[in-house]
Amino acid sequence: MATSSAFIHTNILDAEQFLREDLSCILETARQIQQLYTLAPDKLYQVLQGRVLASLFFESSTRTRLSFETAMNRLGGRVISTVGFQFSSISKGETLYDTMKMVEAYSDIAVIRHPVEGSSRIASAAIQIPVINAGDGSGQHPTQALLDLYTIQQERGQIDGIRIAFIGDLKFGRTIHSLMKLLYNYEVEMVFISPVDLALPESYRKELGQRGITFAESEDLKEIWDCDVAYITRIQKERFTEQSDYERLKDSYSINRAFLQASRRNTLIMHPLPRVNELSTDVDDLPNAAYFRMASYSVLVRMALLTLCLKAELPVI
Amino acid sequence: MATSSAFIHTNILDAEQFLREDLSCILETARQIQQLYTLAPDKLYQVLQGRVLASLFFESSTRTRLSFETAMNRLGGRVISTVGFQFSSISKGETLYDTMKMVEAYSDIAVIRHPVEGSSRIASAAIQIPVINAGDGSGQHPTQALLDLYTIQQERGQIDGIRIAFIGDLKFGRTIHSLMKLLYNYEVEMVFISPVDLALPESYRKELGQRGITFAESEDLKEIWDCDVAYITRIQKERFTEQSDYERLKDSYSINRAFLQASRRNTLIMHPLPRVNELSTDVDDLPNAAYFRMASYSVLVRMALLTLCLKAELPVI
Amino acid sequence: MATSSAFIHTNILDAEQFLREDLSCILETARQIQQLYTLAPDKLYQVLQGRVLASLFFESSTRTRLSFETAMNRLGGRVISTVGFQFSSISKGETLYDTMKMVEAYSDIAVIRHPVEGSSRIASAAIQIPVINAGDGSGQHPTQALLDLYTIQQERGQIDGIRIAFIGDLKFGRTIHSLMKLLYNYEVEMVFISPVDLALPESYRKELGQRGITFAESEDLKEIWDCDVAYITRIQKERFTEQSDYERLKDSYSINRAFLQASRRNTLIMHPLPRVNELSTDVDDLPNAAYFRMASYSVLVRMALLTLCLKAELPVI
Repeated sequence: MATSSAFIHTNILDAEQFLREDLSCILETARQIQQLYTLAPDKLYQVLQGRVLASLFFESSTRTRLSFETAMNRLGGRVISTVGFQFSSISKGETLYDTMKMVEAYSDIAVIRHPVEGSSRIASAAIQIPVINAGDGSGQHPTQALLDLYTIQQERGQIDGIRIAFIGDLKFGRTIHSLMKLLYNYEVEMVFISPVDLALPESYRKELGQRGITFAESEDLKEIWDCDVAYITRIQKERFTEQSDYERLKDSYSINRAFLQASRRNTLIMHPLPRVNELSTDVDDLPNAAYFRMASYSVLVRMALLTLCLKAELPVI
Repeated sequence: MATSSAFIHTNILDAEQFLREDLSCILETARQIQQLYTLAPDKLYQVLQGRVLASLFFESSTRTRLSFETAMNRLGGRVISTVGFQFSSISKGETLYDTMKMVEAYSDIAVIRHPVEGSSRIASAAIQIPVINAGDGSGQHPTQALLDLYTIQQERGQIDGIRIAFIGDLKFGRTIHSLMKLLYNYEVEMVFISPVDLALPESYRKELGQRGITFAESEDLKEIWDCDVAYITRIQKERFTEQSDYERLKDSYSINRAFLQASRRNTLIMHPLPRVNELSTDVDDLPNAAYFRMASYSVLVRMALLTLCLKAELPVI
Repeated sequence: MATSSAFIHTNILDAEQFLREDLSCILETARQIQQLYTLAPDKLYQVLQGRVLASLFFESSTRTRLSFETAMNRLGGRVISTVGFQFSSISKGETLYDTMKMVEAYSDIAVIRHPVEGSSRIASAAIQIPVINAGDGSGQHPTQALLDLYTIQQERGQIDGIRIAFIGDLKFGRTIHSLMKLLYNYEVEMVFISPVDLALPESYRKELGQRGITFAESEDLKEIWDCDVAYITRIQKERFTEQSDYERLKDSYSINRAFLQASRRNTLIMHPLPRVNELSTDVDDLPNAAYFRMASYSVLVRMALLTLCLKAELPVI
């Protein structure tokens, strides 16, 4: 059984910090929790009893915040929570460093969402308790990437050997970049599908080359048909200088049920949500549409991370 | 002892869904909880341990939200909560359907307050976990009506046989319409007192006729003196096109202690709160002023609903 | 061992309500909790199990709110919480009295932060459950003063005999005024250092004289060098009619490491936080910089107050 003592990390700050064995430990812990949740929920409820999570959302992200808060509650821990402009001391000119010194005294572990890239690292450096990055600006969102990884493993049985397509905004898409970095630890092929304006940045192409990862780039959604996994993301209106470009692309990058049924690999459909037009609701009840199940996986993976970072032990059943 | 297994409902969406036996079950469960709260609060605290309530207030309603959150906490359950503009994914264009699929993965039961009529039914149709409507626009507010019913039973001993006056905005008053519908299951007489502009809509008059319920309409507050219960509601400024009409009515529909002491039936005074001018504070310490006690009843009734919808069992003492 | 039964107060409303023996009881209870937190956190977690704290912040104060919510959670209690404009019924015209009658029905104890002086007393008068003032306008902030007192005792070993400097806005500084009042119960000397425009009000000087407390006033920060404790506060921009006055003072009232090293008494540095320019970050790692440790003390003192006001007993170990 994977134990917290084998996990060397105290903070979850970015996707690069993990070796393959770290990822295996996280995925295995999440799997054990999934099992315990069915077999012995009462015991699971003792794991973090008496511990306090500071849920610090300097910008709003309901999906991520509630996922973490549920994870802490299901492990028996407690949550103190604050969102956006409620950070009154920040509005009085307090630095992130000072805020975190306060948080350190109040809680056992902190989750931080912040609009500025690198904030979670600054926050973590300020204090001794574990810090989990829940997305910092255009930076990373490692817990999203970890739940994506868990989804692939649960739905496809394994990660090695898959061919995965990334679709949408490859230029700014934080979740895609974080997941890519985790997948560097596995034997996978990647296909990048986007309009030219939102193509993968050169720095990432270079990384892929250096690691010898087989990849292809395309503007054609039909490439999905030859992939095991399609990871679809939103194309954000605010990324375009010309409104007309957005309107044109919005329609061309829209995936529906009829289109997917031409897949030759029964492609697993993933999406970090929220979705707008890029993924039709008629896909929802396809068995390989995984995006709603991902919300459940998100709680399990975050339960695993809270357990591991706090060096708590799971109950034996 | 009433048990959850006898209660066939999973969702609480509107007042029409209940038969008299359902209402009896809810009222009896609330009464048992009231007793347990005095005799064995520690046991009560185990009833929903490990369960998570999603408290989803798409519009703010502090009174209702805190009542539900206290109810869940007093049963040992946990709460994840979000209010108003914190629903960041909604602001990114997410549908209520997609939001609810997320909520389903995070929690065991959801309470939803929404500005649009019918939202709670849409929310409930999207997911498998129980949904409780905490008010949806000009639609229904069934848990308010249920606590009103519990109040009448506790304060008057029984519901059958009472003569109840509804006072104020009978045209738009959501709480009045929901309570009326519950009272269709009992032998009651109704008196409707309002300015002409805010009179009971024709559709409700027709319903009353079809069900053979004795009722009267009046503009005269003195009708209260012959009623067992007076259910007073706020007259909302924003309902009037002419400000002068509002100012005139605001004063004429104001009930005070001296007026009530002329009652021939020791009329029970109810109000869903908040109040403004329509109910004077000099009424507060009359023994038959029930409106502050209604806050306690609200927690008990919501504890009953959470228990029943989750098919949990109350402890035996 | 100090027991709750020896504590006669139910509400914490202002600094004047306490005799020296009350303060001893609070400080001793906080010290016991500090010990229990190390030796038997699981037992501590039972102290307020099943109790509900209403955390009512009519204005935002993240530091104080999260401190109280952590305190309640660490004692095993539950929290219902609301901040600022979420008080929807207030926006509909509800009085504080009516709001508190609701809160009384929902919770076992209430913490209230309000922009209007005297609000916590009004709130407390409305209801039977304990009320703790978490700051009301230009009025008092007694729990801040109590944690300041605990800090002095923990860091200096005792309170009697110290010479304490108050620096900054002595005219409007709520925390300074509250702490002064608590210190009236001890044998201390006070030094007041501020720009003339922000000097101690005449009423306080009179109080000091009547109580025979030795004190001095100065504009010179160097007075700190002869004090055991320096209590530094923010100079708020909004207090000045002339922006240029603020800019000039902002720089002159800024304390750094080099300045403090000239101290002849190894002066303990306290600050209620947040800080801006008045206290340099290069002071942070001096051993006598107590302001970050004050966050930990704040939780202990508030745990003590919740325990004492609710007449709960601490576990014996």
